[in-house]
Amino acid sequence: MSGNKAVVYEGPGKVEVHDTDYPGFELKDGPGVNPANVGRKLPHAAIIKSVATNICGSDQHMVRGRTTAPQGLVLGHEITGEVVETGPGVEYIKTGDLVSVPFNISCGRCRNCKERKTGICENVNPDRPGSAYGYVDMGGWVGGQAEYALVPYADWNLLKFPDKDQAMEKILDLAMLADIFPTGFHGCVTAGVGPGSTVYIAGAGPVGLAAAASAFLLGAAVVIVGDLNKERLDQAHSFGCETINVAMGDPRDQIEQILRVPEVDCAVDAVGFEAKGHGREASEERPAAVLNTLMGITRAGGALGIPGLYVTGDPGAHEEAAKHGSLSIQIGLGWAKSLSFATGQCPVMSYNRQLMMAILHDRVQIAKAVNATPIPLEQAPQGYHEFDEGAARKYVLDPHGMLAKAA
Amino acid sequence: MSGNKAVVYEGPGKVEVHDTDYPGFELKDGPGVNPANVGRKLPHAAIIKSVATNICGSDQHMVRGRTTAPQGLVLGHEITGEVVETGPGVEYIKTGDLVSVPFNISCGRCRNCKERKTGICENVNPDRPGSAYGYVDMGGWVGGQAEYALVPYADWNLLKFPDKDQAMEKILDLAMLADIFPTGFHGCVTAGVGPGSTVYIAGAGPVGLAAAASAFLLGAAVVIVGDLNKERLDQAHSFGCETINVAMGDPRDQIEQILRVPEVDCAVDAVGFEAKGHGREASEERPAAVLNTLMGITRAGGALGIPGLYVTGDPGAHEEAAKHGSLSIQIGLGWAKSLSFATGQCPVMSYNRQLMMAILHDRVQIAKAVNATPIPLEQAPQGYHEFDEGAARKYVLDPHGMLAKAA
Amino acid sequence: MSGNKAVVYEGPGKVEVHDTDYPGFELKDGPGVNPANVGRKLPHAAIIKSVATNICGSDQHMVRGRTTAPQGLVLGHEITGEVVETGPGVEYIKTGDLVSVPFNISCGRCRNCKERKTGICENVNPDRPGSAYGYVDMGGWVGGQAEYALVPYADWNLLKFPDKDQAMEKILDLAMLADIFPTGFHGCVTAGVGPGSTVYIAGAGPVGLAAAASAFLLGAAVVIVGDLNKERLDQAHSFGCETINVAMGDPRDQIEQILRVPEVDCAVDAVGFEAKGHGREASEERPAAVLNTLMGITRAGGALGIPGLYVTGDPGAHEEAAKHGSLSIQIGLGWAKSLSFATGQCPVMSYNRQLMMAILHDRVQIAKAVNATPIPLEQAPQGYHEFDEGAARKYVLDPHGMLAKAA
Amino acid sequence: MSGNKAVVYEGPGKVEVHDTDYPGFELKDGPGVNPANVGRKLPHAAIIKSVATNICGSDQHMVRGRTTAPQGLVLGHEITGEVVETGPGVEYIKTGDLVSVPFNISCGRCRNCKERKTGICENVNPDRPGSAYGYVDMGGWVGGQAEYALVPYADWNLLKFPDKDQAMEKILDLAMLADIFPTGFHGCVTAGVGPGSTVYIAGAGPVGLAAAASAFLLGAAVVIVGDLNKERLDQAHSFGCETINVAMGDPRDQIEQILRVPEVDCAVDAVGFEAKGHGREASEERPAAVLNTLMGITRAGGALGIPGLYVTGDPGAHEEAAKHGSLSIQIGLGWAKSLSFATGQCPVMSYNRQLMMAILHDRVQIAKAVNATPIPLEQAPQGYHEFDEGAARKYVLDPHGMLAKAA
Repeated sequence: MSGNKAVVYEGPGKVEVHDTDYPGFELKDGPGVNPANVGRKLPHAAIIKSVATNICGSDQHMVRGRTTAPQGLVLGHEITGEVVETGPGVEYIKTGDLVSVPFNISCGRCRNCKERKTGICENVNPDRPGSAYGYVDMGGWVGGQAEYALVPYADWNLLKFPDKDQAMEKILDLAMLADIFPTGFHGCVTAGVGPGSTVYIAGAGPVGLAAAASAFLLGAAVVIVGDLNKERLDQAHSFGCETINVAMGDPRDQIEQILRVPEVDCAVDAVGFEAKGHGREASEERPAAVLNTLMGITRAGGALGIPGLYVTGDPGAHEEAAKHGSLSIQIGLGWAKSLSFATGQCPVMSYNRQLMMAILHDRVQIAKAVNATPIPLEQAPQGYHEFDEGAARKYVLDPHGMLAKAA
Repeated sequence: MSGNKAVVYEGPGKVEVHDTDYPGFELKDGPGVNPANVGRKLPHAAIIKSVATNICGSDQHMVRGRTTAPQGLVLGHEITGEVVETGPGVEYIKTGDLVSVPFNISCGRCRNCKERKTGICENVNPDRPGSAYGYVDMGGWVGGQAEYALVPYADWNLLKFPDKDQAMEKILDLAMLADIFPTGFHGCVTAGVGPGSTVYIAGAGPVGLAAAASAFLLGAAVVIVGDLNKERLDQAHSFGCETINVAMGDPRDQIEQILRVPEVDCAVDAVGFEAKGHGREASEERPAAVLNTLMGITRAGGALGIPGLYVTGDPGAHEEAAKHGSLSIQIGLGWAKSLSFATGQCPVMSYNRQLMMAILHDRVQIAKAVNATPIPLEQAPQGYHEFDEGAARKYVLDPHGMLAKAA
Repeated sequence: MSGNKAVVYEGPGKVEVHDTDYPGFELKDGPGVNPANVGRKLPHAAIIKSVATNICGSDQHMVRGRTTAPQGLVLGHEITGEVVETGPGVEYIKTGDLVSVPFNISCGRCRNCKERKTGICENVNPDRPGSAYGYVDMGGWVGGQAEYALVPYADWNLLKFPDKDQAMEKILDLAMLADIFPTGFHGCVTAGVGPGSTVYIAGAGPVGLAAAASAFLLGAAVVIVGDLNKERLDQAHSFGCETINVAMGDPRDQIEQILRVPEVDCAVDAVGFEAKGHGREASEERPAAVLNTLMGITRAGGALGIPGLYVTGDPGAHEEAAKHGSLSIQIGLGWAKSLSFATGQCPVMSYNRQLMMAILHDRVQIAKAVNATPIPLEQAPQGYHEFDEGAARKYVLDPHGMLAKAA
Repeated sequence: MSGNKAVVYEGPGKVEVHDTDYPGFELKDGPGVNPANVGRKLPHAAIIKSVATNICGSDQHMVRGRTTAPQGLVLGHEITGEVVETGPGVEYIKTGDLVSVPFNISCGRCRNCKERKTGICENVNPDRPGSAYGYVDMGGWVGGQAEYALVPYADWNLLKFPDKDQAMEKILDLAMLADIFPTGFHGCVTAGVGPGSTVYIAGAGPVGLAAAASAFLLGAAVVIVGDLNKERLDQAHSFGCETINVAMGDPRDQIEQILRVPEVDCAVDAVGFEAKGHGREASEERPAAVLNTLMGITRAGGALGIPGLYVTGDPGAHEEAAKHGSLSIQIGLGWAKSLSFATGQCPVMSYNRQLMMAILHDRVQIAKAVNATPIPLEQAPQGYHEFDEGAARKYVLDPHGMLAKAA
């Protein structure tokens, strides 16, 4: 156990697989590690052998060079695997357990964790509430697109699958519990989706598709997905969604054709700050386009769930204000319609156990919905590239060949 | 329009179809009409031509002679139909509208209605909050197992289907919106059912089956239905439920075989006060058996939804206390497990619009789940009899042959 | 009863008291009446003799000429009074009842009303959901700063005080139930205020003060009110609020001095689109200043309640985007902190009965908190003027001298 | 630090102060310790020097001999104190911190803890979910009516007061955070108490009084407390409650005199299984009397919060069924009124931080409301006796004389 192959960010557009340190029970210095976290002791941690570790759309923000991520950063925050070692402070999680790792790291001991707001834990990121593995400005926890990964506060953070054999049969589905399934689900929950709802989801990337699958699981009557990418829209259509190509213009008219009314009950923004415009502006960046469109097509009294990422700083933005995270938002319209808005990281632990049960009992086919596609760890660079090109796939890295074997 | 054929209670075990008065915009005296309601003006009412009007398990309590229902009472509180006339105070509902009638009558003007608690409206039953059509001690509103029925406060009470042709194609499903689908759904909601839940439903009669279908719509991972009646259990099994024959004994062990744990997250009592015992006591009345069993098999912190009817007086009860509505309940067990309990009539209006949407968009097959079976109005006596014998069917009366035509 | 003295908008900065028509059970044409509402029959209405009818900050937007309000518009949407006549469709409200009128007009029959969203009723404003008396683009319902006013759907809309004598003793407090008390309370509820919360309220006008009083009623530990107006801050201080003069700069530091931490749990925007800047920008219009400040000083995971009005069109705005209701909002900051935002008109009926109880049983002194100041109807122009000048008063018009008599 | 004076149960009616072992970071065998817990390692624990440790009404069930509590059991589960030592797994709590200890022990790592249901933690009591210090059948954690006490999972369980000096000024109030203030508050929350509510609280012992104070903090309009003990009713009256002496009969009529209606919105059972009857039955045990009375006097659609303890076994009960925890409950009445019922231990951690804030900022005077009365540890036997005799006091033991000094 001397090495640990991992996916490393080496600069804009450049991702490589390198040999890195095998994890230990202390957070060591390295690219992106917050100085205040260097040397932090982690007796409460567990070391995970990654069975599946996914590439996420939010990783692309870094890889595209839209952030200040440092060269050498190990990427990856969607980890599923087997516990191979536990620290002395771990009591209930055992070596051999097959587990899902919530992408947001949390301590289980601060006010926010006690209030189930694990996406904004106060103790893991010295800069501000909220943290994640392998992500810029998130405290410096080492990424999990690797053979092995360290998970702090293991008793609190890890979700154990009740039966390993049963779990390995659905491992591609369960791999989505680390992030996009709860994230899409959270978008729907905060948008007020329930039985009989009509829902519009902006974005047919993996989070959008996961939101669509979540909407069905929540009992939605009609799920409409909008995007500019035909292949991704086809993917949405494959499991029962209505689809709208926003390159054709504002979705309002197309919604009316589907529902007889031009508005939906609930809307989810699964795009975030790198949004493009609609119709003739479809090739241009319009960072507020999705939010403003959603206000227009959500019925009065409805809600917007906003799992799509908006950032405090975006040096590559085209507009000055956007560089500082300010967008021109039609708040007047939102107010007139009594809309409400929910933002932020999904608190994965609020949902992952229940979603695991839905997967294990065949109530949702999330891997199929997002077109989960396992590839060897070594092919990560190609996966990043194809995903950025718009492939309608969710790439799942397979560092130990266990996915290939399970399939 | 001089007459109105209707189903009339003529004494224990005796149901007949008689010619009765065509409804007018005033509540007239008659069997079971509360004196304080006689002569009440109803300019806000609409007259409905019944397209579908269902026999309900709660009607059986009266027909079996377990209540003080008077001879001559017109039965029926599950009405779906077409508006043929509206009073001068009706503004938005129009003649020709195809509508669902919530079984609980409510005024839309009292404190409880404003708080969405339409099952306990303060203005329609002079004796106490809560009312229904064709039911003993519920104010005396004329029953709807008839060709025509009067619905007060029509703008408030009626749910209009958006498209008549579309609705007639799913009319058997939509007929369940008047009572059992929302009632079963309410049982699940108050039991805390959501995505990933494990659920036990006591009773595989129509409300139990509707609760099971609701649990799936709400995303439940596993739905287990318990009953003594094999045919009804087979019906539950037909749409994906696990089943437990409680004649074999306490369901705890059987639950463990299904779930690996002997407890569920959520429990629904769809039986009520005429419960039988389990195992060797399966042929004897044990009015508290269901409640006590549910406390045993619900995990700590869970909830019991209790749509099954419990009454304040049951002259035919075997135990003295039960005659006055008191049962021997293991409250100590419930307390130790921090359980919560929700009782009472379902406030149909809180759910029926959303459930209609789920039906219209093919998200639930409620008619199939409850085995909805249309029969001519004239065959109502036979329907009552077969249902009481334990037929795994939900009988839907077809007073104008419109269901036969639609099928 | 041939006439009806009323407060009329006669152009920017100009308010007069004129003789107008006594109300009848039909909506007649007049300044600001939506053509589709002209001739509307109102058998469900009641005529109210105004006992107290308040000047509202939102009226000032019109009077300052910041809207398209037409000359001749009768103003006023905060009405408390005695029922003097009821239409034939009114069943439970009786002549002689002393009542509070929610400022948002609602039908009690549409989907939104059934869902308690009475601020966005679908049936009273032909242009879009939501309506109010005496307000531009709200359907054209005649204002209530008058001797007499017409209230449609009286059984639904009116809140009857249980005892007239008891109510007249607290009539200045009860007069706040029509709008600002529920509106401030709604701001707090949607901001998540509860026992032990720390709360920041932007704006010490009547709605801000009402929000502060509401926060205390909800059990808040610390209530901090920020404004530029010293007199209004003194008023806030008079009933236990901490105060911050934002002319001194961003409130963050001052909050830290009060709480030891620079953030609050909950924030309420009681200012809206005519916001000024902070510190050196305190004399300039900065329409997004309040929203952006609140995002900065609300702790991660918190919520912003936004009862302050934001509009879809503001021809007098200084920035082009603001003219169309778009503001430059730091959504990136909000997202990073997982904040949520609730906007829109307060649904008064969701709160007014409970707040009435709190008033009647001396649990809140809302009139004192907002410095309710009765003046004769004839002095309305002066009241508007003084209020616009920043008086720390809530002016209550007294058309029949009943407030003077009660005092 | 060789010894540890503690209050020990020595048999029915007999409580003594003995020297016991100073706590260590392992759970040792002793009276009442669950065998499966013997030898349990506790590196996550902290040792607390008790500043205040209260006698609770639930201790009296044991002391009166109504349970199977073993001789030698160290009593006490209401602990407030200073951290004097922490185990190697404790990261955020530090020696010197002044803290409140929730009476329910929880691990912060199981499903229930993650769902905030800390009253039914799955990992601390081998027999069933839920645990407490110094209580029979609760796992065997040593009681805290002692000079020193051990608190496991200290980072999770302990609530640190932000400033020690400030806290010592209100230490008697803060001492109520360990149990009765959150417990009474939970009763109110689960009963649906909010601004404007009318509330009936059965029982004027410390929990009842804490519930009454909580109801006011939650904004209740009227709080009515019923009991048989005049001195305790006087105590309730002293801070604004209306009172009813149930020795005079059913409270319905007295409620009507207070409220003009014979029903309240919300009801709290702060009595539990050792209830006496009302009126002529006031000297006899009637274990279901409180629950049945509350159903009668709660308005339809209301809720009952039941913090009062009901047990699974009560060998001393007068009725056979009650010995096994079954009571004759008027479930038919409850169902007819659509009531809901919430039972179980209060999950203290859901409330204690917010209630601490309310205390520190003078929003509630809980010590005064319950008449908190410090006495030396040595006087514990006398305190138990007087409390059992009906003293209207909450006895707070002062093992180190720090309360005397602070006063």
